[in-house]
Amino acid sequence: MQVFVVGNISVDETYLINELPDKGASIHGIKTHQDLGGKGANQAIILSRCAIKTTLIAAIGNDSHGHWCKEIINHEPLTLLPKKPGDCRTDTSLILNCADGDNANITTTTAANYLHLDDIQQAFLLSAPEDVVLQQGNFSFEKTAAVFTLAREKKLTTVFNPSPVKPAFTQLLPLVDVLVVNQLEAQLLGAAEDIPLAAANLLNAGVKQVIVTLGAQGSMLLDAQGMHQVPAESVTVTDTTGAGDTFLAVMLACAIQRESHITPDDLRRAARASAITISRTGTLSAFPTQSELAEILR
Amino acid sequence: MQVFVVGNISVDETYLINELPDKGASIHGIKTHQDLGGKGANQAIILSRCAIKTTLIAAIGNDSHGHWCKEIINHEPLTLLPKKPGDCRTDTSLILNCADGDNANITTTTAANYLHLDDIQQAFLLSAPEDVVLQQGNFSFEKTAAVFTLAREKKLTTVFNPSPVKPAFTQLLPLVDVLVVNQLEAQLLGAAEDIPLAAANLLNAGVKQVIVTLGAQGSMLLDAQGMHQVPAESVTVTDTTGAGDTFLAVMLACAIQRESHITPDDLRRAARASAITISRTGTLSAFPTQSELAEILR
Repeated sequence: MQVFVVGNISVDETYLINELPDKGASIHGIKTHQDLGGKGANQAIILSRCAIKTTLIAAIGNDSHGHWCKEIINHEPLTLLPKKPGDCRTDTSLILNCADGDNANITTTTAANYLHLDDIQQAFLLSAPEDVVLQQGNFSFEKTAAVFTLAREKKLTTVFNPSPVKPAFTQLLPLVDVLVVNQLEAQLLGAAEDIPLAAANLLNAGVKQVIVTLGAQGSMLLDAQGMHQVPAESVTVTDTTGAGDTFLAVMLACAIQRESHITPDDLRRAARASAITISRTGTLSAFPTQSELAEILR
Repeated sequence: MQVFVVGNISVDETYLINELPDKGASIHGIKTHQDLGGKGANQAIILSRCAIKTTLIAAIGNDSHGHWCKEIINHEPLTLLPKKPGDCRTDTSLILNCADGDNANITTTTAANYLHLDDIQQAFLLSAPEDVVLQQGNFSFEKTAAVFTLAREKKLTTVFNPSPVKPAFTQLLPLVDVLVVNQLEAQLLGAAEDIPLAAANLLNAGVKQVIVTLGAQGSMLLDAQGMHQVPAESVTVTDTTGAGDTFLAVMLACAIQRESHITPDDLRRAARASAITISRTGTLSAFPTQSELAEILR
């Protein structure tokens, strides 16, 4: 069993500034970080570090940022498709960090939009029934729907992490085997304030397993077997960036390793892994290493 | 005779957004341009395209932006020193272009600050008396002063384009042979509203030749021979980015080519070159080519 992550790659550039500039203003700032980011890339990298055969289907541009992304991904046990960079700019997330701790983000989706369904179809030729397709919410509704439809035709297991969430995603639930949502996404897509009720609505809409992540309150698994709650690991919070991506990828890796459904024990192992990410700063540099993950998956 | 440009290199990244983001907001944008910039790099590139032997002494970082800058500079007939990238990030200018046409800029000066006086001293070992040192206003007052002091010790001709201007730069005027200023810089450093008066004050402070650029009103040369005014070329304005850098570099190239002082004819040729830059969009891509400059300098 292998995973195809269909998603985005971005370069996260963090600038430290005193205040957000007004129009017409030229201010000085310090560029403090440049990190590989994008939920697609994050989840694919962690899956591959779990020794799961992973293909990331995502577009980078033919610019210096694209070369930089490719170099970093080449250091991970991961296959990136398409091989050729797109005729576009690599996606960027500008994180403008103000001195008072607040920040504002500017994100581009040029490369994510550039990735064509043909490229995805081409990559799926390498799949076998029971392989897993994992998507996030970065594409248009239409492209997200087309990818899951294609996956179902090829009898692949579909996993959806609908973030950033769009209300129209409710229409995709019949195409989803495993749905991984946070509290707000569960409430929106499950059309209920109450999380167990929202999760039950999501199952009724056709999802086979619903996993709700609840931050410090842990996580919850709902399927035909019933509902299971799993506490979070106690950890000193340093930087929560990428914690959700770590949780999802490790939980999924546990299930794929056993070639079975997700169990409460997988959520427990995922919580241990995301506690590592939370205890460190940065994105890629905060993720658990291959040996840390081998220990967790053992 | 050769030129040593001691200055900055930056990567200008232009983002098109609807509105400047508020704190806490995440907005979408499009990255429309990535250009090599920085007044040091701009002026050095044009000087070298004028067939003047040019060394740019400026720091780039050991990151993907630094590699990109180096690749572009390698395509110009220009020497970049120090050869080794600095242990820092390459400087960036974020240009946040709002839909209404207004924009805000965020600029970093990490690499410019990183460039050490030792690096400059090392590069000056390759100089001979009468060679030219050209600086802009991107360094601290102390570093700018130290560079001109060093240049005077080595009997080099000093050219100063004090932009962005700092009031303390008035203290440097005795170290400057040729001062190239716009109207506001002339008024500030020459301590007079009236431009001819301000220019006369600058001469009295020890500068040998003062050139004031006046945009559509042309330019003005003041030295011991008297005052000369030169009209601008009539041109349809497309994008004025880099026009001042083009003017300065071509004017200086004319004088160096003759191994003499700057003359009104040099200002006329410079005006022709900057009209080319103004008629095109972009920075580097808007600059006159080597063959266009050869025609102008003939």
